[in-house]
Amino acid sequence: MQSIGAPLEVASVLVRDSEKDRVPELDRASLTTDPEMVLGDKSIDVFVEVMGGVTPALSYVERAIDTRRSVVTANKMLLAMHGPALVERAIKNRVDLAFEGSVGGGIPVIRVLREALASDSVLHLAGIVNGTCNYILSRMRSDGLPFDVALREAQEKGYAEADPTLDVDGHDAAHKLVVLAMLAFGARVDAGQVPTEGIRGIDPIDHRFAERFGFVIKHLAIGSDRGDSVELRVHPALVSHDTQLANVNGVLNAIALEGRALGPTLLSGRGAGDMPTAVSVVADVLDVARARLSGVSGLATRTIRVQEKALTPMAEIRGRYYLRIQVHDRPGVLARLAGALGDAGVSIEQMVQEGGGGSSGVPVDIVLLTHDAREGDIRTALESIARSAVAASTPRLLRIQP
Amino acid sequence: MQSIGAPLEVASVLVRDSEKDRVPELDRASLTTDPEMVLGDKSIDVFVEVMGGVTPALSYVERAIDTRRSVVTANKMLLAMHGPALVERAIKNRVDLAFEGSVGGGIPVIRVLREALASDSVLHLAGIVNGTCNYILSRMRSDGLPFDVALREAQEKGYAEADPTLDVDGHDAAHKLVVLAMLAFGARVDAGQVPTEGIRGIDPIDHRFAERFGFVIKHLAIGSDRGDSVELRVHPALVSHDTQLANVNGVLNAIALEGRALGPTLLSGRGAGDMPTAVSVVADVLDVARARLSGVSGLATRTIRVQEKALTPMAEIRGRYYLRIQVHDRPGVLARLAGALGDAGVSIEQMVQEGGGGSSGVPVDIVLLTHDAREGDIRTALESIARSAVAASTPRLLRIQP
Repeated sequence: MQSIGAPLEVASVLVRDSEKDRVPELDRASLTTDPEMVLGDKSIDVFVEVMGGVTPALSYVERAIDTRRSVVTANKMLLAMHGPALVERAIKNRVDLAFEGSVGGGIPVIRVLREALASDSVLHLAGIVNGTCNYILSRMRSDGLPFDVALREAQEKGYAEADPTLDVDGHDAAHKLVVLAMLAFGARVDAGQVPTEGIRGIDPIDHRFAERFGFVIKHLAIGSDRGDSVELRVHPALVSHDTQLANVNGVLNAIALEGRALGPTLLSGRGAGDMPTAVSVVADVLDVARARLSGVSGLATRTIRVQEKALTPMAEIRGRYYLRIQVHDRPGVLARLAGALGDAGVSIEQMVQEGGGGSSGVPVDIVLLTHDAREGDIRTALESIARSAVAASTPRLLRIQP
Repeated sequence: MQSIGAPLEVASVLVRDSEKDRVPELDRASLTTDPEMVLGDKSIDVFVEVMGGVTPALSYVERAIDTRRSVVTANKMLLAMHGPALVERAIKNRVDLAFEGSVGGGIPVIRVLREALASDSVLHLAGIVNGTCNYILSRMRSDGLPFDVALREAQEKGYAEADPTLDVDGHDAAHKLVVLAMLAFGARVDAGQVPTEGIRGIDPIDHRFAERFGFVIKHLAIGSDRGDSVELRVHPALVSHDTQLANVNGVLNAIALEGRALGPTLLSGRGAGDMPTAVSVVADVLDVARARLSGVSGLATRTIRVQEKALTPMAEIRGRYYLRIQVHDRPGVLARLAGALGDAGVSIEQMVQEGGGGSSGVPVDIVLLTHDAREGDIRTALESIARSAVAASTPRLLRIQP
């Protein structure tokens, strides 16, 4: 443990339930269920918020800042919703707001964005930032498990919450992306507007097709600086099997950054869990305590510059696409699919068909990989396919990560 | 670019040749070949040393520190030889010594070790820290090139120096390992005593055998905290093909850290080159300039604690081994190899033989993978094999990275 030149003391711990079992190192006399005992205690210099959620965390953090205490938080939802306002508030009050634990658990991505890349500009980032999704996708791929079975297993192992919505529907990843975008691109965006897709719709057959084309399916948080706007999106994507991101498995997280001068950088490690998050929170506490002892509180936080940025509409993003379309195997079906895509200006790079065939009546899966296309044009083609009643169910669209 | 609250100005640039072409952004009036013009200029607050080597860099850096200027350096040789003494000197003079650019180019490993892991302890590290070696090994593996051809190609592309000794013989990696060990383990060691092997002895056939067993050959810098001593070593090693390190190719670098609380973390990116190093140097300049403006110079450097540590002798390290032994294919040869290993207490896990055979007289390659063994015992077995005259040439030993 690093020395900062003064002892650190845990003054008070606000909990919901003072009777619950706690780690033996904790002095039970410091427990309280009364927020006033913590927030009103003028002897406290640093406030650590690890309760999660926006209410009542926001009001507690605001009050701590307003009374000139530095705050360390690991609360990504709070930061996604109110990060820029809290940073501004901290700067005004000359205190620090530190939040390494909010994204990527023990991966020091916040520090790298704030400090190491201080003289560079980040062009692009792509990350596996939700361990639950990565665990489920890894298990589906390696053992062919259906989504529900892999989710249940993740819950049994403690990798997924009883209510997995925030994780598997992508909202947790979207919160983390907004925090990363604040630092990487100086972007203040409406977190609720970030295009977000989860992994519920992924079928084991998608993993098999992806593998056949040399890809792995990963749930990604993606951000790009587009000058006036910022492109942020969260969704499953096909990642080439020989990339570093493709080889990040289980509950591990990883974040790939592309700096203008630095080129590509990858950081990976445990994305969540008590210990990695604790390491990040304590590193932050050491930093803000050291700054306070030296009379330079707020100095580090003043380096964060944020401005309102528009989000690039999904229709305008470009890339290659994977389309899996279930069709009734009748003559002319392929021609109609190809026609719908061609009419929308989308050209096909590869195509495979699996299952059914002949007059069995069982629908067959056709998978198409497109060349580079505009997402709006892909959507136009899919609407035309839906209208033509060629498809037996809603086509599955997955983006291919370049 | 981040704001620090005051303009930074390049006051003076010490060069060997003032006539040489320079980047157009540089004011030629600031060039000087006289060290006194820089070191004697009391108006300079921060000194950046990117000249490399120990003489005269050491005396310049010492003088800058003694006259209360903070120093930013990217000079790994200087730090490997004199890092702890310079850190101590900087602390005594209340200035900063920052050296992010010294290891891993643009990979912020120094920052991560100093700050993010401040509350954890590093148990183990393993890194690909020399881009020249990694490029040559990657080319040998992917295209079957012999070492000499791959080296020449690296030189033509500017990835290797005209005199490649420091790189391909492992000394550059050893310097970087000593710098990492100073921060990761608080270890002050004699850089010249770190067991160091380069990649000259690797043959294309070793890549083929490694692949057959599911490994990739990488040149690694490895460090472990062993309590009283520190285990540091630099050598080529067999790395399982599905690990993250195995998939770091070309001139990329990567450093894997194992924290007690944090678990595994991997950082990868461009290890060298003008721009990545510049990003690290400028990030350091911003840090030390900001600290100086706030009157807290030396605060960050005071967190580095170093003490003398013994190096674990190579004979005492344990692991699995790859042994390639060229033998004349005569009856009883295998029994003698197996006997020599067995007598030394080394047990064999797998064995393959390639080439030759029968009475052709051409030596054949026998490759053995051992179970976990003590390196001293492996050496004893190899000496016994050498005495028995079974081997047609010096056996090749490669360590298998767990």
